[in-house]
Amino acid sequence: MRTTVGIIGGGPAGLLLARLLHRAGLDCVVLESRERRYVEARQRAGILEQGTVDVLRECGAGARMDREGLLHRGIELRFEGRAHRIDFPALADGRSVMVYAQTEVVKDLVALQLADGPPLLFGAEVLTVEDPDSATPTVRFRHEGREQTLSCDFVAGCDGFHGVARGAIPAERTAVFERDYPYSWLGVLADVPPSCEELIYARHRRGFALHSMRSPQVSRLYLQVPAGTDPAGWSDERIWDELATRFAVDGDWALERGPITAKSVTPMRAYVQEPMRHGRLFLAGDAAHIVPPTGAKGLNLAVTDVVTLARALTLHHETGSTELLDSYSETCLRRVWQAERFSAFMTDTLHPHPDRTPFEERLRLAQLERIAASPAASAELAENYVGLPLS
Amino acid sequence: MRTTVGIIGGGPAGLLLARLLHRAGLDCVVLESRERRYVEARQRAGILEQGTVDVLRECGAGARMDREGLLHRGIELRFEGRAHRIDFPALADGRSVMVYAQTEVVKDLVALQLADGPPLLFGAEVLTVEDPDSATPTVRFRHEGREQTLSCDFVAGCDGFHGVARGAIPAERTAVFERDYPYSWLGVLADVPPSCEELIYARHRRGFALHSMRSPQVSRLYLQVPAGTDPAGWSDERIWDELATRFAVDGDWALERGPITAKSVTPMRAYVQEPMRHGRLFLAGDAAHIVPPTGAKGLNLAVTDVVTLARALTLHHETGSTELLDSYSETCLRRVWQAERFSAFMTDTLHPHPDRTPFEERLRLAQLERIAASPAASAELAENYVGLPLS
Repeated sequence: MRTTVGIIGGGPAGLLLARLLHRAGLDCVVLESRERRYVEARQRAGILEQGTVDVLRECGAGARMDREGLLHRGIELRFEGRAHRIDFPALADGRSVMVYAQTEVVKDLVALQLADGPPLLFGAEVLTVEDPDSATPTVRFRHEGREQTLSCDFVAGCDGFHGVARGAIPAERTAVFERDYPYSWLGVLADVPPSCEELIYARHRRGFALHSMRSPQVSRLYLQVPAGTDPAGWSDERIWDELATRFAVDGDWALERGPITAKSVTPMRAYVQEPMRHGRLFLAGDAAHIVPPTGAKGLNLAVTDVVTLARALTLHHETGSTELLDSYSETCLRRVWQAERFSAFMTDTLHPHPDRTPFEERLRLAQLERIAASPAASAELAENYVGLPLS
Repeated sequence: MRTTVGIIGGGPAGLLLARLLHRAGLDCVVLESRERRYVEARQRAGILEQGTVDVLRECGAGARMDREGLLHRGIELRFEGRAHRIDFPALADGRSVMVYAQTEVVKDLVALQLADGPPLLFGAEVLTVEDPDSATPTVRFRHEGREQTLSCDFVAGCDGFHGVARGAIPAERTAVFERDYPYSWLGVLADVPPSCEELIYARHRRGFALHSMRSPQVSRLYLQVPAGTDPAGWSDERIWDELATRFAVDGDWALERGPITAKSVTPMRAYVQEPMRHGRLFLAGDAAHIVPPTGAKGLNLAVTDVVTLARALTLHHETGSTELLDSYSETCLRRVWQAERFSAFMTDTLHPHPDRTPFEERLRLAQLERIAASPAASAELAENYVGLPLS
């Protein structure tokens, strides 16, 4: 089999890249190791930056998002029993975010691709990327029991943190930057209308908690727990009690409880591999970088990576110029490091941590006090949250 | 001897408090353990916030400052060979800072006090503060070879980090917050006009450097060195070479060299003791809190402490109300923690550190990139640098 762009991974990054390339007249093939049902059920992020919303609309994948997504014009910070709202449009030049689950974005992109898009093979397990720095890189994969070969002009590694694409770049050509956190998020889905129309980021001395939602009927809630926590140790009642404690605020506000339908623990990690390109292999999204989820940046970074890559491949296709391909890694990494910085800031500021000294904890509280008191500090948070412009 | 307010320490905090109380009609006595010549020669900070400038003018100590002080409307950040200016008035509502050495402020306040102020005893070594939580606290001190007693209505501990006042508060009534840094500043005075009209904060992979000045003829320069460094190990030539390396920037700019007249190493430390009051003993300035010097906040915090204390003592004197005395510690500590936060931010961001991972170093560079790119992030730095409003 042969194609112009071989895309490894059928998550949001790979699917969106395929959509953008298809619309620009480039042919591509998407290889996804899992089955469709699995891919469409993965629970991941749910906050779309304004720029992500714009891209999905432009490529025809915005119809259901615009019907069912929830426009969020702010978030609430809670600490020391007080609540402070961050007003996005007022602070960040009119911009906002959309709450629309990644899993829904994936369903929309899969439906579009199967309707009129380039080939999308589920259950296609990539084994190796060969000769990525030659003119004819090759992707070897197993599909329906047979080993096959996809010859490409370019390969896009969109196969996430545990994928094979990143490993095709020789270790001596890369630099890795990482940080592990000693805590995780215990996340639950609950069949209960959200107790607040906006997200609540709460710092309590017992730990961080996040109030979010998937829809007007489904709440998404998170609790900071020690790394390695087994969700089985957390009964539904214990989860609700702990959430109620951490969200407690002066004045009358109550957390609505309901049946918990899913429970899982997400580790917190930061990771960047540089560069994001080796020859004709380009990494995008989690294949190249991971952020802790506190800043809601993971999915949005994947989107800006593939927008940047689609532009570069399109320019090359139309004019033969490699200019944008050559600057791809540097362009993406500038934005990646800003997202790493903001994600680390949100994570550090909002999560208390028993290994920190009381001095360190006080600095974080002072940071939250400052944000609550200062338009400049609030604007800095809001601008990063709604998403920095694509450079 | 008896007085209304016994002031321990004749540095800028104690002298300014005496001035403010004297003008409000309260009598006080200042006890300074060192001799006048020593006090007037101590090299300390040199950046006065707008609010500090205003207070000095209001209490009649601003004449020489206004003649000889240098108004600074910005600072320059340097990193990765690039320079970025922070424009204070544009970003912080018209405010600026004044470069006028603490040692000059002290000279001006000493002269005023000796001319028409309350008693100021040099060489008066305080031994103990007795019964600080009674109605009649007493300061025992040695002066001219004799032990003496100063009976007070109130005692102000303005005797710095190594003073005795802080120790008069029982340890079980206090909480201490602190952070030590593994690096120090090697500071030099040089008889050479400053190479730049404004301060330069430079982050180089070999370490931080600061270009400052005492006057149009005298440069004040600092180099980050490991904690415990002996200044004798740094020849003048080595200092100038290292400064030139760390300040190097794309484009033509040169560091002017000249005779070095003083050389010393300042450790970097953060410290807060809570509360800042015990009965009728009130701590102000370094007696209660220390910041690393990178944010230029130490002297300015001392000034806002004593302004707050003078207001509280004046209200009590005029009306008998203890309201402001009772809120003194809380009022000061809100501002102290903001200064601790900003000082830690400036220090962490600008000082590379060999024990940090490459990931951590990249986050700091991303923070500087963000400041250089964003009006909101620049404004947040500028507002903190010129000084937050007195709350």
